[in-house]
Amino acid sequence: MTFPFDRDDPESAIAEMASRCSNWGRWGPDDVRGTLNHLDDAKRREAAASVRRGAVFSLAQAFDMNGPQKGWRRRTNPVHTMLDTGTDAAAGTQGFPHGIGGADDVVSMPLQCSTQWDGLGHIFDHGRAWNGRPSGEVVTSDGDLVTGIETVADGFTGRAVLLDAGRALGEDGELPDGFALTEQHLTEVIAQQGVQVGRGDIVLVRTGQLTRVRRDGWGDYAGGPAPGLSFTTAEWLQRTEIAAIATDTWGFEVRPNEFHDAFQPLHQIAIPHIGLFIGEMWDLDALAADCCADGRYDCFLTAAPIPVTGAVGAPVNPIAVK
Amino acid sequence: MTFPFDRDDPESAIAEMASRCSNWGRWGPDDVRGTLNHLDDAKRREAAASVRRGAVFSLAQAFDMNGPQKGWRRRTNPVHTMLDTGTDAAAGTQGFPHGIGGADDVVSMPLQCSTQWDGLGHIFDHGRAWNGRPSGEVVTSDGDLVTGIETVADGFTGRAVLLDAGRALGEDGELPDGFALTEQHLTEVIAQQGVQVGRGDIVLVRTGQLTRVRRDGWGDYAGGPAPGLSFTTAEWLQRTEIAAIATDTWGFEVRPNEFHDAFQPLHQIAIPHIGLFIGEMWDLDALAADCCADGRYDCFLTAAPIPVTGAVGAPVNPIAVK
Amino acid sequence: MTFPFDRDDPESAIAEMASRCSNWGRWGPDDVRGTLNHLDDAKRREAAASVRRGAVFSLAQAFDMNGPQKGWRRRTNPVHTMLDTGTDAAAGTQGFPHGIGGADDVVSMPLQCSTQWDGLGHIFDHGRAWNGRPSGEVVTSDGDLVTGIETVADGFTGRAVLLDAGRALGEDGELPDGFALTEQHLTEVIAQQGVQVGRGDIVLVRTGQLTRVRRDGWGDYAGGPAPGLSFTTAEWLQRTEIAAIATDTWGFEVRPNEFHDAFQPLHQIAIPHIGLFIGEMWDLDALAADCCADGRYDCFLTAAPIPVTGAVGAPVNPIAVK
Amino acid sequence: MTFPFDRDDPESAIAEMASRCSNWGRWGPDDVRGTLNHLDDAKRREAAASVRRGAVFSLAQAFDMNGPQKGWRRRTNPVHTMLDTGTDAAAGTQGFPHGIGGADDVVSMPLQCSTQWDGLGHIFDHGRAWNGRPSGEVVTSDGDLVTGIETVADGFTGRAVLLDAGRALGEDGELPDGFALTEQHLTEVIAQQGVQVGRGDIVLVRTGQLTRVRRDGWGDYAGGPAPGLSFTTAEWLQRTEIAAIATDTWGFEVRPNEFHDAFQPLHQIAIPHIGLFIGEMWDLDALAADCCADGRYDCFLTAAPIPVTGAVGAPVNPIAVK
Repeated sequence: MTFPFDRDDPESAIAEMASRCSNWGRWGPDDVRGTLNHLDDAKRREAAASVRRGAVFSLAQAFDMNGPQKGWRRRTNPVHTMLDTGTDAAAGTQGFPHGIGGADDVVSMPLQCSTQWDGLGHIFDHGRAWNGRPSGEVVTSDGDLVTGIETVADGFTGRAVLLDAGRALGEDGELPDGFALTEQHLTEVIAQQGVQVGRGDIVLVRTGQLTRVRRDGWGDYAGGPAPGLSFTTAEWLQRTEIAAIATDTWGFEVRPNEFHDAFQPLHQIAIPHIGLFIGEMWDLDALAADCCADGRYDCFLTAAPIPVTGAVGAPVNPIAVK
Repeated sequence: MTFPFDRDDPESAIAEMASRCSNWGRWGPDDVRGTLNHLDDAKRREAAASVRRGAVFSLAQAFDMNGPQKGWRRRTNPVHTMLDTGTDAAAGTQGFPHGIGGADDVVSMPLQCSTQWDGLGHIFDHGRAWNGRPSGEVVTSDGDLVTGIETVADGFTGRAVLLDAGRALGEDGELPDGFALTEQHLTEVIAQQGVQVGRGDIVLVRTGQLTRVRRDGWGDYAGGPAPGLSFTTAEWLQRTEIAAIATDTWGFEVRPNEFHDAFQPLHQIAIPHIGLFIGEMWDLDALAADCCADGRYDCFLTAAPIPVTGAVGAPVNPIAVK
Repeated sequence: MTFPFDRDDPESAIAEMASRCSNWGRWGPDDVRGTLNHLDDAKRREAAASVRRGAVFSLAQAFDMNGPQKGWRRRTNPVHTMLDTGTDAAAGTQGFPHGIGGADDVVSMPLQCSTQWDGLGHIFDHGRAWNGRPSGEVVTSDGDLVTGIETVADGFTGRAVLLDAGRALGEDGELPDGFALTEQHLTEVIAQQGVQVGRGDIVLVRTGQLTRVRRDGWGDYAGGPAPGLSFTTAEWLQRTEIAAIATDTWGFEVRPNEFHDAFQPLHQIAIPHIGLFIGEMWDLDALAADCCADGRYDCFLTAAPIPVTGAVGAPVNPIAVK
Repeated sequence: MTFPFDRDDPESAIAEMASRCSNWGRWGPDDVRGTLNHLDDAKRREAAASVRRGAVFSLAQAFDMNGPQKGWRRRTNPVHTMLDTGTDAAAGTQGFPHGIGGADDVVSMPLQCSTQWDGLGHIFDHGRAWNGRPSGEVVTSDGDLVTGIETVADGFTGRAVLLDAGRALGEDGELPDGFALTEQHLTEVIAQQGVQVGRGDIVLVRTGQLTRVRRDGWGDYAGGPAPGLSFTTAEWLQRTEIAAIATDTWGFEVRPNEFHDAFQPLHQIAIPHIGLFIGEMWDLDALAADCCADGRYDCFLTAAPIPVTGAVGAPVNPIAVK
């Protein structure tokens, strides 16, 4: 399929796609939940019904200094330090009574450093945030005053469907960097797997890149070339009425981006215009192996963001139960 | 019931209780999961089956500067700052192409600052950590090298039972500070609610203190007087084979503690000897109101800690589905 | 002296004072040094010549959790944690060869948490920063892009004069909270002390409030009532061509402020219009006791800010040599 | 000169050197100032007398994300974020009266990330800290309880002598990585420069490595090969009774170290046995150019550490006046 946009004119393509995909006003002027509005109690009942064996999977990468971050835009890996330790307790320096000892700790980290959700205040299009709000009235130095991640603290629980594009379309289970997943690709994966994706589902797309960097080293995982969704999938993302989507890559969409001199153009549609929540740096490998083994690609997913008030992104330990 | 220990001799009482309740070696010398060993696939299937309406509840308090911490042992409230803002995006200072703008953020916080799990490396008894390990070999400045919270990243998903002690035993739904919940009290609540608590369950105990401080101000919520579990419940905690327990208070056990010159003696049994995971500062109010309304006190709980490598505690956004 | 402004109309008073005191353009359109332009090599030679005994004084308060901050605008006290400890070294857990052990540490702190300089990007007047620049072009989420404290890393070394207003005008060496120091007061202190204040000097004003809170507890030291400079001293601050000024209080100017419904109006003149660097929370007590004893109130001061790139404030350990 | 130790037996060499150089007990059992005891009022008077022109130099590197740190032992570059910005002030979102706007900021950084002093609690020899104290009683998770940098907040002001080894011994002003500066080299530099180094002086050694990495990129500046002091200079460091020493390199001593399988053996003598304060990552280039031009290599140095209570290292903005 040829790329149906002028690669030298991302701005026009984005404007056109925004007009096709916009959900602004769909859930009223005060909406802060975006596509999570598609995820309702019925979907959660369906999710619960998908639990067959009770097998559980954490989809989080580690949160530590051995992560992919290299300081771009001050994004570091998490710095975890101790306020009290077992060595101190053993040395008897803690001053507590009756032989009790303790350890405490602290973390300093970007909210986008490891497995995460992008909040609706994370990306703007020409100064407009989700639902058409002026970005400057939404996210100030005090954080996201309107769509902070705490407003959807309970939103990410439902039925998830794994699309293992790496296995379905790649060699040895991995898509190469720069591979642009189109709607046709997604449809093919869905067909191969014999699964349904519909309104209110959370879609998990495994490209296999994480598998690769684990084997070969992080390299430029944070911001460099990667397989990912094509800009052209924007309409599919909107039309299918999925509640959220997550990938095993740093940036969800294909990199290098499909336009020249561009930066994450699909984000510019997905977040401010569709109101779609995007998960990044998820570890889908164990779940994918299990799905491959039993042929069942849906699960009960709870991916609850830490509700830091006003956050535009949030660390998450997503839990899938099959 | 009279307190069956010498209030002036916590050390002897703790030693005696430890000998009665110890789970050391129960799951082998290398165990890192403690009481989570009680929570298996069957329990998760039972949990899924408890989902009737699909109603969802976040049990997390907010993570922000309006929290209860006052600096004790360097525990502050979370400090959330922005790396990029919507005001900057609107002002056009970000340097991105095609009109995309973004916001990013960072947090610095103690892992025990808000809704959390205590990890097994959080408390020691006379220099011994869970399963009898020397505390100095478990938790150093590099964190918990053995039982870091990442080792149980997938462990906290299962059936939870809410025990609303505030409503069952208190006036206006709240237990007063200093109220020591005994086994007899817990049994009474269970009976009143007509619910079962057994092996592998996660028990959520609402005292009502959080309701009170929300109304009246934090006061000494962090470390001051509070309702909570009596030291004497240690045997019940061990015998029932529950997987974990959480409360709406800062410190889980009754405060002031039941011994003179003591500090969290029940922790000293529960964590290193029983291997029990303790949740603190959970917000159980909305769930409790719902349970009171429909008379059903069990739910599907996913309380997935952020898996900071080596952490002895972990922030969590627990999600209950009924 | 009556207050020569309408206490209900701070905005007009500020506008008028700004027009009287403005240094905009005085040192060219690109200036980033403000009143530090008054401090030259000759002044540093004069400062060196003021060293008689070689006695040295640190004018810094401690940087730790026992500080005055209470979280206002996310200003906490410094959180200092260890990356490695001596207990670990003693326990032999560090993995270094030939018996070497080490300790490392990290700090997380607001740059305005303890003894500090306000940078020129700290305060704006109606969206204008120092020298008339639009504040939005000066300080973004990336920090102060123009007048970051690193641009004056070498600027704060010269002759300082201590004005011990507490001893000269107060009872028992302390001015009461709410005491507004006017030009007349400053002139009186200068005369009593027999010292000269002129172009390029750094002025240190001791009110005695720090002495008081050390004795009585922090109370509302951070933001509450305090002695300090009257709004009316703006012209004196500009006319005398001092290079910088510092006090032993949280906020330099008298609090409550002299207008109703106001917030730090003298800052609004001093920083953006005069280009004056303001030091706050300095500990002047030991130096003041020495000056009182020997009757000499000048010294060689080096108050070198930590040059965090883009900072609008900076921690400092000012060193006075007499 | 041949290296007078068995390169395969650092431990014996260190033990022998420690016995030759020890200052333990020299200033009493309670001493916390180490070699700063050599720096007295007379030396500060001499320093003031060395000021001729009043020229001032900051010897600090920048404190920002463009630094050399790569995460080793959780040492990151400084993360500076804004609590309030000028863009927000311009957008009118701050809520202050009468047109005042403000910017505030916060930093999270290792205390050893940029220009710094090593405190006396930074390095241990076989579990012994400075003056023979057990390391576990000196530095716990609460920080350095005995020799925290705050105890010498006023200690680093005096006469400094620059030894420009890069210019005196190198090609194009730079020593190559791996160049071990011996006592003979230091003596030669001193002779070439026609300067005296004696009791109480602070010695600044420029190798030129910083000049090189600025030109060529950081590379492995943090921990990789570097010119620096030979292990054999330990006796010179002790015998000359200098107060402190600083270099333009990451680690002060030559790297790779002169023993096989070794890590910073000279630190193991200098800090715990000599009680010597070591400065690292200083920027000596501007000062060195000036000294080369006027032939005067001494100055009045104030290198005041930020007195974070209990710190084992400290950021510093050293100021030299000539």
